[in-house]
Amino acid sequence: MTEYAFSAPDREAIYRVIAERRDMRRFVPGAAVPEEVLARLLQAAHAAPSVGLMQPWRFIRVTDDALRKRIHALVEEERPRTAEALGPRAAEFLKLKVEGILECAELFVVALSDKRDVHVFGRRTLPQMDLASVSCAIQNLWLAARSEGLGMGWVSLFDPQRLAALLDMPGDAEPIAILCLGPVPEFPDRPALELDGWAVARPLSEFIWQNRWDQPPGQPAPRTPRFVRAWSRTPPPVTMSKP
Amino acid sequence: MTEYAFSAPDREAIYRVIAERRDMRRFVPGAAVPEEVLARLLQAAHAAPSVGLMQPWRFIRVTDDALRKRIHALVEEERPRTAEALGPRAAEFLKLKVEGILECAELFVVALSDKRDVHVFGRRTLPQMDLASVSCAIQNLWLAARSEGLGMGWVSLFDPQRLAALLDMPGDAEPIAILCLGPVPEFPDRPALELDGWAVARPLSEFIWQNRWDQPPGQPAPRTPRFVRAWSRTPPPVTMSKP
Repeated sequence: MTEYAFSAPDREAIYRVIAERRDMRRFVPGAAVPEEVLARLLQAAHAAPSVGLMQPWRFIRVTDDALRKRIHALVEEERPRTAEALGPRAAEFLKLKVEGILECAELFVVALSDKRDVHVFGRRTLPQMDLASVSCAIQNLWLAARSEGLGMGWVSLFDPQRLAALLDMPGDAEPIAILCLGPVPEFPDRPALELDGWAVARPLSEFIWQNRWDQPPGQPAPRTPRFVRAWSRTPPPVTMSKP
Repeated sequence: MTEYAFSAPDREAIYRVIAERRDMRRFVPGAAVPEEVLARLLQAAHAAPSVGLMQPWRFIRVTDDALRKRIHALVEEERPRTAEALGPRAAEFLKLKVEGILECAELFVVALSDKRDVHVFGRRTLPQMDLASVSCAIQNLWLAARSEGLGMGWVSLFDPQRLAALLDMPGDAEPIAILCLGPVPEFPDRPALELDGWAVARPLSEFIWQNRWDQPPGQPAPRTPRFVRAWSRTPPPVTMSKP
């Protein structure tokens, strides 16, 4: 612990919101999000880190119902194409609920800004760091929304050029997310794609290596015996009895 | 507010960690991160959303000091190249401290996994959603670290192919971050690049539009008068007196 650590109850809240955030597709129809809550959520997004402080995120709030339907139609057009690309799992995919665009209280399209080429800091060899920054902003929004009791879903089933055209984006901007936001009937305790039988999340221990690709921690590990033991418990407790 | 909302103090902790997280380059040399804290942080990262539940993140912990020095050397090689690409701001850039690789208590390289092509769900038209997912995981880690009083910096000044080679990554894996993590002397109240005079963060109101690109909220806005007013306060208070 350092002098800058948050209190144990505060840390517990932060770990809890991280654990209880879900990618939502089911929303309470006809519900609303208070304007001051929306402002807090967007401010949380805007507090994200960005490469070279370029702040490449742009948020377009969709309040026009006809536009919302056109965005939904774009996703409906993409679903059979994704199904076809999935081959043997096509029918299974088409049965999944993958978005809540028409039901959610608030709909946003998030895009990478235009004129990003002038930003070179941290992007000369990794130009895609603009997307990384916007993704951090969306994760902030997701966590803040969960803390307010609101669900959010990130939909990426769309043709980006057609969505860009629908929103009059300049040629060098890029839509990367349709965000469905609002009250939800419930927050499941596992990812929707697990509950729907699409995929099974794998434990953390499969994702951590040491010093080189595919090398498990602790081989050789003169400095890490407790580290390995801590990771072998999956999942570790979210609450912290000894902070 | 919905029945799933966190308590007011818990929400305040979550908004506070989002506001107080910083991209850090200065660390306390010779410090350590307890193994159980590291395990919590990585579990927080692993709780991130991922497109199609593909969990594309891989974390390589660097405990070998010679390897750490080689990673630092890669960044040192990139700095003059970025400076050159920046043209008139080259000298200014070279004066900035942009990483804390040799001083930080813990060093990680984060990569996109190999064999990502089999994952089509949500990626047929937007294959870069794998990077979006890993970025969400890194943001989780960043916030969790801040709550523990630990700083983190995301370094993207490196040649990804050479870093991949250094860590024996397969050809279809991609390193996207060098993460410096550990105790820090202090958390500044503004982004380092602002304090160093490199850039000035712009207010949220410049990043929000309604129904189409570049259209400010509320024009026309029969549904949004309070929304506009809420956004015109910049920055809004993090604490919530009336949650």
